[in-house]
Amino acid sequence: MKQIAIGIDIGGTNTAIGVVDRDGNVLYEKKPQLPTPQKKENPLATEARSEELLNEYISALSGEIKSAIDTVKQINPQVEVVGIGIGAPNGNYYSGTIEYAPNLPFIGVVNFAKRIQEQFPEIRYVKLSNDANAAALGEMIYGGGKGMKNFVMITLGTGLGSGLIVNGDLVYGADGFAGECGHTTIVPNGRVCGCGGVGHLEAYCSATGIKRTVFEVLAKYNNSESDLAGIPFNDMTAKLVFDAAEKGDPIAREVFEITGELLGRGLADTVHHLSPEAIFLFGGAAAAGEYIFKPTKESMERHLLPVFRNKVKILPSELKEGTSAIVGASALVWKELEKN
Amino acid sequence: MKQIAIGIDIGGTNTAIGVVDRDGNVLYEKKPQLPTPQKKENPLATEARSEELLNEYISALSGEIKSAIDTVKQINPQVEVVGIGIGAPNGNYYSGTIEYAPNLPFIGVVNFAKRIQEQFPEIRYVKLSNDANAAALGEMIYGGGKGMKNFVMITLGTGLGSGLIVNGDLVYGADGFAGECGHTTIVPNGRVCGCGGVGHLEAYCSATGIKRTVFEVLAKYNNSESDLAGIPFNDMTAKLVFDAAEKGDPIAREVFEITGELLGRGLADTVHHLSPEAIFLFGGAAAAGEYIFKPTKESMERHLLPVFRNKVKILPSELKEGTSAIVGASALVWKELEKN
Repeated sequence: MKQIAIGIDIGGTNTAIGVVDRDGNVLYEKKPQLPTPQKKENPLATEARSEELLNEYISALSGEIKSAIDTVKQINPQVEVVGIGIGAPNGNYYSGTIEYAPNLPFIGVVNFAKRIQEQFPEIRYVKLSNDANAAALGEMIYGGGKGMKNFVMITLGTGLGSGLIVNGDLVYGADGFAGECGHTTIVPNGRVCGCGGVGHLEAYCSATGIKRTVFEVLAKYNNSESDLAGIPFNDMTAKLVFDAAEKGDPIAREVFEITGELLGRGLADTVHHLSPEAIFLFGGAAAAGEYIFKPTKESMERHLLPVFRNKVKILPSELKEGTSAIVGASALVWKELEKN
Repeated sequence: MKQIAIGIDIGGTNTAIGVVDRDGNVLYEKKPQLPTPQKKENPLATEARSEELLNEYISALSGEIKSAIDTVKQINPQVEVVGIGIGAPNGNYYSGTIEYAPNLPFIGVVNFAKRIQEQFPEIRYVKLSNDANAAALGEMIYGGGKGMKNFVMITLGTGLGSGLIVNGDLVYGADGFAGECGHTTIVPNGRVCGCGGVGHLEAYCSATGIKRTVFEVLAKYNNSESDLAGIPFNDMTAKLVFDAAEKGDPIAREVFEITGELLGRGLADTVHHLSPEAIFLFGGAAAAGEYIFKPTKESMERHLLPVFRNKVKILPSELKEGTSAIVGASALVWKELEKN
């Protein structure tokens, strides 16, 4: 009997659904992805409409889970579905709830894992967490974190997410929401963060942060020669900054230096808390390779107490960009199986 | 058979030695304390002199441990010495070593726990950690952290030490040195820290940090009326600032406001990592009560993501100031007993 897990990642726009085996192979992936209900579909933010949208979504998602299982069983009837792992914004591992997710149309606290479990009473585990925590488990179960007991996963996307592994287990904290390193203060009285706070790490060290830094550096040097000087704010992406850096653009190079300096200092703060064996960087911004890894590593080392220097590896995640969300979510299931 | 533990705290000046029962009662305490060997006793920092001082110290310490056990056994012959717990600067729990301790005359890595164990082969556990980690275990085993699975201990003394409890266990990290929150950066390009770094939390939020802030605030207002304006830098203490605050001195009040603002932001960073149930403050500076607790709490709440607000308690440690070092160190023994 081959054991499989369902991995679900609830993104702001779409929901990814897939089937993953114990080695991290994706046996099935739903294409196109299922649309996630949008905030604008509940314009008055009423509880009634929230409930309606939730019912529709649970129903559509359950249908997709069933058809994913059926598809895999057609190829190999001898499979056992061990569980369903769900990565969700503001996902609470302990309660299986999604709580006050700012980009979803649901009101308050939604008992999401329970609702899915009701649809699949025969499936052993339905576990939910946020996407960065799921990615950290994915790195531990399938990726570069195999065999490590203490490491940190940093996801550099639109925001900066993190998942912390201590003593071989994910840190959920007292309430299930631990691991929000993106919202530590890196520049007192600095940039406004998406969360409403100021000076947070994620406002500097994320794809969005890189974009914002471009315009600060352009403003500083008034450099009209840079490739980046012709691109409007709304069209700027981390990828364009990377392309410019590859061509030797000094603005782009300085943007990465600044990003690395701040990220390295932020990671040093995390090392002073947890002294991990390694820090994995994942996501679009991490794809900039040495442009981001080199200044980050240099800055981290410079900001560490001597006792921690030259000990902590900064490594690229071994999860594949395309399927990492599904694979990370599915890791929740194997971790649960390990524990029980 | 009553079980007892030996608690030893290696301070920069003296070494405290005591006998503690499972409930945290101190059954015996050596008075006066044993002098800790001083850096100046090894003026050329040679390995040979280091070894000599270590041998003398191990011998004196072992003698004191024996006489502590004898004294307790005279009162109650039916005691079992379960273990010896040692709090030491740069103490490594995993290896039982003291590594490159800046205030001790020993060179490099000293195999301290092993050396003590050799003197007491009949005693089950000899465990060593740094003093703030030991204090965190003390809070969990005997104090306000009883029953909590996730909390943070902050010791506000000459420096700022911390011990982190996650999932019911102390965080030691990959190398045994985790929990150095005092050396996270709170003010980029800020004050020089005792460790050589800049802008660290401990350079602001400790007894020494409070003293330094007094002179910044005096410089800012040029206030000659303040009680604190007549005291030289070298005579200033956190206690004098507290006394002035009690009398309504505006400089002293502002010093605590600034200290609390920065400490609260630092604690918010820690909450974003670990989402603890509570943060315990211990030590001289914590004795300033509401002068420090109120601004710290307000600042922490202001710097937290909404999801963490009004959840995390900031509490005074329940360990007694006088015997906390012995009691904390002895907790290492009971924690080991629990695990095995």
